[in-house]
Formats: sequence, structure tokens, C-alpha cells
Amino acid sequence: MRKGLFISIEGSDGSGKSTQIENIKLFFADRGIDIVFTREPGGTVIGEKLREIILDKELTEMSDMTEALLYAAARAQHVRQVIKPALAAGKIVVCDRFADSSIAYQGYGRGLGEPVSIINGFAIDGCIPDVTFLMKMDPRVGRRRIRAEQQDRLEREQDDFHIRAFEGYLALEKRYPQRIVGIDASRGIEEIKLDIYKKLEEVLQSVPWQISGK
Amino acid sequence: MRKGLFISIEGSDGSGKSTQIENIKLFFADRGIDIVFTREPGGTVIGEKLREIILDKELTEMSDMTEALLYAAARAQHVRQVIKPALAAGKIVVCDRFADSSIAYQGYGRGLGEPVSIINGFAIDGCIPDVTFLMKMDPRVGRRRIRAEQQDRLEREQDDFHIRAFEGYLALEKRYPQRIVGIDASRGIEEIKLDIYKKLEEVLQSVPWQISGK
Repeated sequence: MRKGLFISIEGSDGSGKSTQIENIKLFFADRGIDIVFTREPGGTVIGEKLREIILDKELTEMSDMTEALLYAAARAQHVRQVIKPALAAGKIVVCDRFADSSIAYQGYGRGLGEPVSIINGFAIDGCIPDVTFLMKMDPRVGRRRIRAEQQDRLEREQDDFHIRAFEGYLALEKRYPQRIVGIDASRGIEEIKLDIYKKLEEVLQSVPWQISGK
Repeated sequence: MRKGLFISIEGSDGSGKSTQIENIKLFFADRGIDIVFTREPGGTVIGEKLREIILDKELTEMSDMTEALLYAAARAQHVRQVIKPALAAGKIVVCDRFADSSIAYQGYGRGLGEPVSIINGFAIDGCIPDVTFLMKMDPRVGRRRIRAEQQDRLEREQDDFHIRAFEGYLALEKRYPQRIVGIDASRGIEEIKLDIYKKLEEVLQSVPWQISGK
């Protein structure tokens, strides 16, 4: 039986993802449950080095397939070095973005399609989140919240790229309704938090294993 | 009709690959033919950044799949930014290592198998060498030529890794006899050079297109 619990959070830039990640951390802290919080791309020394390359504003020549393979490389390392060992130790892992981001941004946004799913299948090696919170908000609205000079290479892409990526997220939500919990992110922070907390309570009730640190 | 000519050189470390690359460069220089010489991993700014990470002796925690995906990412960039544009312009491209290296070292050496071929299929996007010279030499003999302190992360692997990779090369040679020209690299430098020159003459005779710069 698989141990631990793997939660990912997805959504467009400016959708309030970071705020709700803080709320998720608080949820577990309030219950005295240790979690392993991590993010993509990054989460390991190798991943952080790749993150620098992926998001570097100067590297405008980067091909779409290079980008997709770099995200997958960072993820392969992250899964094997951090996520799988933590889950094997019975821990709760909360991850800011995971493979769904690649399918949305590189598969749909860049138009690379199915190869991105295949490549990520090799990268994650069966390590699929138990629950994924998808912060749903029109990316044109979300993007207005981010100041232009703070944007990295991907954030600087045109609106249509972000709209295609958002459509990719909606396709994933439809394809994996058991795993992906769509959250209407146009509402107030507290309202969204209550939705997420309700789902987290449900998940904690349903896990048939002992969560380490609980 | 495809233009240009794509030549790759493969083989174990210490098999005399670098010496014969110099001979290949001389072959074309003597005939007044410009070539684009390039190497993997590397060949682009992004590729060189990835090369540093891939070969970094400190990053001993790198997973096999991460390594395979990083080589593929560097290759995807190299193909799209350097190799395809040069071939499209009718040039001769000579590349020190290409996708066969990944199949040998990551597929066979690391034991990752078929996923490495699939990932590289996406990376090279149909860009297959016209001719590949494979320098064949027992890797245990070749490796004695390289001083231990000069070895990078992959060169430091144990003999059995390099023997499996060599077996991968032999399997590729068997699978693609039209493309891969096996060279007995245990012979003298001049003898090997004559073999390679003979094949290059043949190839130049047979190309039905105008080589740019000839």
C-alpha cells in the first residue's frame, strides 16, 4: 500500500495560488502535521540550477521542446530525490506546480501536444498526486496583477499563450475529475480557503494509512 | 529534397575519436569545403550551460532519468538552433556525439532502455545523421588512456557502465547498418584515417545535391 499523501497546486499566474499555498501550510500546521513543501521547477539543487536556465529572460532562443525537456528533467530529479522518499516515509508532500503545469503550458500553451505527456510519464515514474487543487481564473485577469518588470521568460509570453494553457488546465480537470479539484479563484480569499480546507478535511478522513508526524 | 550532409562521430572515451575528428576537419579543409563542426552536449549557449550541469562532478545525486532528459534538452536546442538551419542552408555538419550516445550511455549503460529512444525521437525531430562513424574499441582499453583526475562525472563511472554502453553501440550498428560505419579503432591512427577518408569520398560522390561552400 502506498503511504504518505501527495497534494499539488496548479493554476495561472496571478490566480492567488501563493496565497492559498500559505493557507494550506497553515491548515496542516494548525493540526500539528508536518508537511514537506516543495515547488517546481526547482525543489533540488539540480532543479534550482535548471530553474535559473528555464526562467532566464536572456535565453529567448530556447526552443519549445528544450523547455519541455528541461521542466521534465527538473521534475525527474525532484520526484526521485524529494517526493518519492518523503511519500515512502509516510509524509504529506505539498507541491507548487507539478506535471499538469507542463501539460498545460508546454503541451497546450506551446502546442507541443501529446509528446509532453509521454515525456512527463517517464519523468514522474508513476508518482501522481492524490489531490490537485486547480485555481481557475481567466488568465487575462490574473496577469494584470503581476507587474511587467517582475515577469520571467514564461510570464512575458502573450495572452494567447496563457489562454491556451488555461484551456489545457480545463481539459485536464475534465479528464481527471477524481484527482483535480477545480477552485473558482475569482472569489474572495477566505471563501476559497474554506473550499480548500473542506476538501483537505475530507482527504485526511479518507486516507487509510497513518500520516507520519500526525 | 533534403539539402546538406549530416555526419556524426561516436565511440567510447579514449577510442581516438578526437584525433579522427581532426582528420575529418582536414579532409574537408583540403577540399576547400566549409563545414559546421559542433559537439554534444553543448553546441549552443543553452547547451553549454546544460553541459556544465550534466558533467559536474559534484552533482552525484543526479538521477539517471534526469541525465537522459538533460542530454535530450541540450540536443533539442542544438538540432533546432544549429543543425537544422545549417543543413537547410546546404552545409555539411560534423557533430561530435549525437543521439546514438544517449541510447548507448543512458539507454544501455544506465539501463533506462526504450524511453531514451522515445525521448530522443522528440528531441531530434527527424534530424538523423546521413553517416555515423563509430569508433569501436574495448572501453577498458580506451579508458586506461584517460587520466583519472581529468575525468568528468560520466567518465568516472565503473567499467561495467562503459561496457554496457559499448554493447549498446554494437546493437545500434547492427540495427542501422546503412547509416553506422563501424571503425576498428584498435589499429593505428593513419590506417583508421584512410578508412574514414574512403567513406567520406564515397559519401561526397553519392550526394545528389550541391554542397554549399564546395
